[in-house]
Amino acid sequence: MGKRILMAGGAGFLGSHLVDRLLRRNELELLVVVDDFWTGTRENLKHIDDRRMHVVDCSVQEFATHETFDEIIHFASPASPPWYMSDPARTIKANVGGALNLINLIRKGGRISFASTSEVYGDPMITPQPESYRGVVDCTGPRSSYDESKRCTESLLFEMRRTRDLDVRIVRLFNVYGPRTRIDDGRAVSNFIGQALSDGILTVYGDGRQTRSWGYVDDIIDALERYFWLDETSYCGPLNIGNDREIAVIDVAHFIASLVPGSQIKFLPPVPQDPTNRRPDLTLARQVLPGWAAKVEYEEGVRRTFDWFKSKMTLMERIPEPPPPLLLQE
Amino acid sequence: MGKRILMAGGAGFLGSHLVDRLLRRNELELLVVVDDFWTGTRENLKHIDDRRMHVVDCSVQEFATHETFDEIIHFASPASPPWYMSDPARTIKANVGGALNLINLIRKGGRISFASTSEVYGDPMITPQPESYRGVVDCTGPRSSYDESKRCTESLLFEMRRTRDLDVRIVRLFNVYGPRTRIDDGRAVSNFIGQALSDGILTVYGDGRQTRSWGYVDDIIDALERYFWLDETSYCGPLNIGNDREIAVIDVAHFIASLVPGSQIKFLPPVPQDPTNRRPDLTLARQVLPGWAAKVEYEEGVRRTFDWFKSKMTLMERIPEPPPPLLLQE
Repeated sequence: MGKRILMAGGAGFLGSHLVDRLLRRNELELLVVVDDFWTGTRENLKHIDDRRMHVVDCSVQEFATHETFDEIIHFASPASPPWYMSDPARTIKANVGGALNLINLIRKGGRISFASTSEVYGDPMITPQPESYRGVVDCTGPRSSYDESKRCTESLLFEMRRTRDLDVRIVRLFNVYGPRTRIDDGRAVSNFIGQALSDGILTVYGDGRQTRSWGYVDDIIDALERYFWLDETSYCGPLNIGNDREIAVIDVAHFIASLVPGSQIKFLPPVPQDPTNRRPDLTLARQVLPGWAAKVEYEEGVRRTFDWFKSKMTLMERIPEPPPPLLLQE
Repeated sequence: MGKRILMAGGAGFLGSHLVDRLLRRNELELLVVVDDFWTGTRENLKHIDDRRMHVVDCSVQEFATHETFDEIIHFASPASPPWYMSDPARTIKANVGGALNLINLIRKGGRISFASTSEVYGDPMITPQPESYRGVVDCTGPRSSYDESKRCTESLLFEMRRTRDLDVRIVRLFNVYGPRTRIDDGRAVSNFIGQALSDGILTVYGDGRQTRSWGYVDDIIDALERYFWLDETSYCGPLNIGNDREIAVIDVAHFIASLVPGSQIKFLPPVPQDPTNRRPDLTLARQVLPGWAAKVEYEEGVRRTFDWFKSKMTLMERIPEPPPPLLLQE
């Protein structure tokens, strides 16, 4: 008997890359992709011609079926601040409500894997951040719908492991970038590339000295593939996955500006509660996934992403923008 | 036109005390109490004879109606570790799923009030804890279903305020005790009283030097009544409510043992992730609710609770116990 797998959020940036890897598995019998196409796109799956894959247009919290699955992978969530801040209730529903629904669709002995985030560390007081660090998240702040719904979903799944012996795999992803990022995603790398390729004005929020550890998508997906498919580990997570080379936002802007002569950098007021730094402690990742490392140099990854954006944007009449700014009361 | 109010968790310990206060309001036209009687009891509402109150036996996340309400109060959640740890998914559903449902039942301009908890501070590194403290919660630990579902619900409601201009009131309650606590609640004060009144052996987990700030229910309900009904504030919370006199668990045990001659204290291994201390910074509470303070001395409050437990337990054939210990994998 082949494997029956459910991939929630499989039309998204990361989800669709993972779908490509899932379809390489010979033992795969059925892959049900559940996506409501809020931030995911049909375009991300267009290249696939595989009769084992069925795409269901449905929100993960509402998806119903009589089937159960050997493996469930829960990636259904927006990941960019303008998107999740534009509909916090929907963000919480996708993560927490999604997980509450999915745990009932796993066959006995089956596995559920979940994409959590470095945002569970909030604005960290230590660097790099090990998995044991409990984080400094403001549960009343404008980023909280994402951060807290990831934290709460982690809690649910770890508790399902403790009380129901569920096989769980949880990764905490650090700023992933690469092809299939939405052009209107709204995060730094894609913003800068889109701006360099349109009006040439790259907007940096704050002084740009806040740092991130950007991981190129292929490296990250390599780690996810290994960890999620791996039977020879009982480690349920959380597992930091990312590139531990830390780069300031302003340096990213300068590098991308250098790819398009004539580009300029413009400074705008800082975004509320933008974390000052973020860098994964990868000690545990190296133990659980021996030999794995983020191999694509930042400059190379950005160039590949730049080329992909360029090929897409030449086809567009108008460059789309992320959701508009929100009602901010104070 | 009178007020239409929905009270979720109105058959619980705190909820039912708040129902008593709600029914004192002359402008109240309809009070719908939604409770699934998981930890709430019909006994807690038995004394009420008021045609304005309707009790609906339903979980808060599943409650459906065509009506909307002027005020909604969300207290639907277990609050004692053995209870919430016995069914973490249900705990998360009640809090987060409950709030996601209730926000759709508020009339335009209406208010939603929510009972959050000092558990959002986790095992705090500063004392007392002000509302601005972001907390130290382990989102992978055995207490996390409660802590994280409260944090996530706070996030949802604050975000609904920011994006939909919802009128929100959020309190963080610190260890409340008093009459109508379940005899099988499982927390320290009620445990010790139940034990003193049955086999006389009071069980202390760890060395008993962990401290709590116990608030007598009448004092806490006074604060909730004032804050939730108050129109002359725009402060949406979070607001710490509790008694800031900190007492070690062992001192509580000695005091209660002294009420029943012949009682003994027995030490058991510590409970995983039991916080070492907890004490509210009440600066903000004194500003928002001038003149309010926890007035009932601890010894007096315990005596009253003791008398209430005694009157209930004499009617019982067998003293009930909290839910059994869980599957703990490690």
